[in-house]
Amino acid sequence: MKRVVFIILDGLGDRPIADLGYKTPLQAAFKPNIDKLASKGMIGLVHPISPGVPPGSDSAHLAYFGYDPNTENPGRGSLEALGYGIKIGDDTIAFRVNFATLSGDVIIDRRAGRIESEYASQLADEVNREIGRIDGFDFKLINTLDHRGILIVSGLNVSREVTDTDPHIIGVPPLKCMPLEKASNPDNAKRTANAINRYLRRVRDVLCKSEVNKQRMAEGKPPANVILIRGAGVKSSLESFNDRWGFKAACIAGGPLYKGVAAALGMDIVNVPGATGRVDSDFNSKFRYAARIVREYDFVFIHIKATDIASHDRKPSLKVKLIEKIDHEMEILSNLSSEGVLIVLTGDHSTSCITGMHTGDPVPILFYDGVRIDGVKRFDEISAVAGGLGFIRGLNIMPLVLNAADRAEEFGIKTSSKPRMYRMHYNR
Amino acid sequence: MKRVVFIILDGLGDRPIADLGYKTPLQAAFKPNIDKLASKGMIGLVHPISPGVPPGSDSAHLAYFGYDPNTENPGRGSLEALGYGIKIGDDTIAFRVNFATLSGDVIIDRRAGRIESEYASQLADEVNREIGRIDGFDFKLINTLDHRGILIVSGLNVSREVTDTDPHIIGVPPLKCMPLEKASNPDNAKRTANAINRYLRRVRDVLCKSEVNKQRMAEGKPPANVILIRGAGVKSSLESFNDRWGFKAACIAGGPLYKGVAAALGMDIVNVPGATGRVDSDFNSKFRYAARIVREYDFVFIHIKATDIASHDRKPSLKVKLIEKIDHEMEILSNLSSEGVLIVLTGDHSTSCITGMHTGDPVPILFYDGVRIDGVKRFDEISAVAGGLGFIRGLNIMPLVLNAADRAEEFGIKTSSKPRMYRMHYNR
Repeated sequence: MKRVVFIILDGLGDRPIADLGYKTPLQAAFKPNIDKLASKGMIGLVHPISPGVPPGSDSAHLAYFGYDPNTENPGRGSLEALGYGIKIGDDTIAFRVNFATLSGDVIIDRRAGRIESEYASQLADEVNREIGRIDGFDFKLINTLDHRGILIVSGLNVSREVTDTDPHIIGVPPLKCMPLEKASNPDNAKRTANAINRYLRRVRDVLCKSEVNKQRMAEGKPPANVILIRGAGVKSSLESFNDRWGFKAACIAGGPLYKGVAAALGMDIVNVPGATGRVDSDFNSKFRYAARIVREYDFVFIHIKATDIASHDRKPSLKVKLIEKIDHEMEILSNLSSEGVLIVLTGDHSTSCITGMHTGDPVPILFYDGVRIDGVKRFDEISAVAGGLGFIRGLNIMPLVLNAADRAEEFGIKTSSKPRMYRMHYNR
Repeated sequence: MKRVVFIILDGLGDRPIADLGYKTPLQAAFKPNIDKLASKGMIGLVHPISPGVPPGSDSAHLAYFGYDPNTENPGRGSLEALGYGIKIGDDTIAFRVNFATLSGDVIIDRRAGRIESEYASQLADEVNREIGRIDGFDFKLINTLDHRGILIVSGLNVSREVTDTDPHIIGVPPLKCMPLEKASNPDNAKRTANAINRYLRRVRDVLCKSEVNKQRMAEGKPPANVILIRGAGVKSSLESFNDRWGFKAACIAGGPLYKGVAAALGMDIVNVPGATGRVDSDFNSKFRYAARIVREYDFVFIHIKATDIASHDRKPSLKVKLIEKIDHEMEILSNLSSEGVLIVLTGDHSTSCITGMHTGDPVPILFYDGVRIDGVKRFDEISAVAGGLGFIRGLNIMPLVLNAADRAEEFGIKTSSKPRMYRMHYNR
C-alpha cells in the first residue's frame, strides 16, 4: 500500500500560443524533473467533468476527490468560507465575492486590478458598518485574499436556490440575483433574491463614496466599486475523504477555496510558511513540507494557484516561467517513490492564456510510479494523447489512485456493510 | 466567439475493403482539402450512441445536436414528415415508409430498386384512393424522395407504442405490427396495431394490381409491391436548438429526415439548388450557400446523404469517388477559419460497404480550428485513433463545439435561472 502526494497546478492545461511558436505553455517550458517522472510513469488526459465542459475550480476539485459535483457540492460560497475558517450554520448561505470595477453600467475589471487585501478588507469593514439587516436577513461581507471575499446571508428560510450576479465576463452590467426556475421553494428563493438585490445596490453606494476608492483612482488604479457574487452555498455535510477512500489526508494550499474543499472533506489543513496562493508563493516550502508530512499522512494534497493566475491574466510567458520554477522545486519529491509514495500531478482544468477563461479542454495527468510505464517521455497536452492512461474523467481519478496505490478493493465484494462509492462512479 | 459550419457525411465510417487493398473508403480516397484541415486541427473518433451500437440516422443526429435519443426522440416518422413540411398534430402518428419488393413471401429489395418519386408517388395516390378509414383510424400514404415515404395514421387514442414491420434485412417476410410489451396503454396499442396490419394487407393488394408495377416488371425492374413501415412518431415538442445551445441555426440538406430533425429543433431550412439527397447532389452548391449564410447564422448544418447511399448499395469505389468529389468542393470552405468560423466534419454513423448495413463502428470527427493541434495529418478511421479528441460519444459533441467556439459556460455557474443542458449529459 502506497501513500500519495497529489499535486494540482491550477489551470494547468492550455491552447497553442502564437508567441510560443504555437506550443502550449506546458510544451514550451523546460521541466526536466516533471518529464523524468512522466518517462518513468504513466500519463493521460483528464476531462474534469465531461468532454468540452469548462469546470469551476470547486466542481473540478470535488470530482477529483471522488465527490459528484452535480449532487455533492455544498456550493462554492460555503467552501470558500470554510477555507477561511468560517463554518456556515443552518439558515445561512454564503457566496463567493469578487471586488470588481464598474465603469458606467458595465464591468471593466472582474478583479478590480487584483486589489490587495489591505484595501479590500477596509472596504468590507465600511460596508458592514453601513449595512446590516435587510428584509429580515443579516448580511456580512468578508474579504479573504486580495480581490476575493465571502458574503454571508442568514435568516429564517434563506434560500440557496438563487442565481449569480457575476456574469463571468467583462463589458456587461452585473446580473440581477434571481430565484432558480426549478427552486424547491419558490417563495423563499424569491424573497432571498429580492433582499440580495437591495443589499447589492446599497453596497455600490457605500463603495463609491469610500476614501479607499478615491485614493485608488487618484493613483490611476481601478476602483473596487462593485461586488459580484456567485456560487451560493450551504453548510457542508459531505462524507469525509477518509471514510470514503480510506486515506488520512492533509492539505497544503494558499487559496481559501482549496483549503475549503479540503476542510469540507475532513482533511487537515497544514499551513506552510510562504504559501500565499499568489504567483509569488513559496513552492519550495510547499513541497518541502509535503515531503515531510507524507510520513504522517496517507494522502497529501498540494494546491498551487499561480499557473491559473498567469492564465486568467493572459500571460503565457509568465505561465511558462512558473511551470519551470515549480519543476525546479519539485526535485525535492523525486526520491519519495523509493519510500513508497505515489505522485499524482495534474491540473484542475485548462485555462486559456488567449481568452483568460476556463476551457473544456482536457488536462494532462501523471502517475508515478504509474502502474505501467507507457514510454511517453514528456508531460504536456499533446504528448499525453499517447499516454497509457488514455482519456479519463475527474470522477475516475480516485479509483485510479486507489489502484495505483495498491489500495483498491475488488468490485462486488462486501467486506463492509456500507455501500461502496466506486459503484456510483463505475459508469463514468 | 466563433460561428460553426457543421458537416455530416452520412454513413461516412467503414471497414477495410479487399478491393481497396484492405483500406477503408476514407483511407483510399485522395482528399487533400480534408487532410489539410485535419493536419491543422484536431481529430478523434465518435461513438454516436455508445461503443458497438449501430445508430439509426435520427438517433445519431439528435445525439450530435445534444438531444438524448433515448428520451428526446419524437420518432423517425414524425421527423421525416416534418422534413417534408407536414406537421403532425394530436391523436396522430407517422411512420417512415419504404416502398419495397416482395418475391413470394420474402423481401428481396428493401428499396424496390430505389424506385423514382415519379412512380412511387403514383402508387401512393392509388393506395389513398382505394383505402382511407379502417377501424376508426384515417390512413394517408405520402411519397417523399424516391423509395421513401410517410404513413400518417390519425384517430382518437392512436398509439405510438407499436413495432416496425420493416425487418431491416432481406430474405425474410415483412413483420407483423405488434403492440409493445410495455405499452403505457396496452389496449390502444393493440387496437392501433390491428388496424395497421389490416391496412397493410390491403395496401399490398392495391400495389400488386397497379399498372405502375406491371410496367416496372415488364422493364425488368423490381416492383414496389409492398410497403415497410418503421419509427412510429408523434408531434415533436423538443426544446429549440437555440434555447438549448445559443446558436441561431440553419440547415442545408436534401433528405427529408435531416430537414425534419432540423425543423424539429427550430433550425431554418435553407433550400439550395441542386441539393437532391442523392448521389448526384450538387455538393458545390451546398458548400457555396453554407459559406454565404454562415455570415447570418451562428451554426450551419450541412447534410450530405450520398456517402451513405453508396454504402447501403455496397459500392466502395463509388463511396471513394464521392468522398473525393466532396473533398474537392470543400475547398470553398477553406478560408472560413480566418473569418472566425469553426468547421466540424464527421459522419452520423458508419455504414459498411461489405454488409450494406449501419454498424456500431466509431466515426472519425474533425475540428478545425481545433482547440489544440494534435499533429495527425490524415482524416480516416485508423489515423483518428491517435487524434487529440480521443474517443467521444455523440452527446459529447455539442459541449465540445461550444468549447471550441469559445461559447462554453463554466460548470456550476448560475448566470441563468434555467437549468443547463450539459448537466444532463455530463456523465457521458
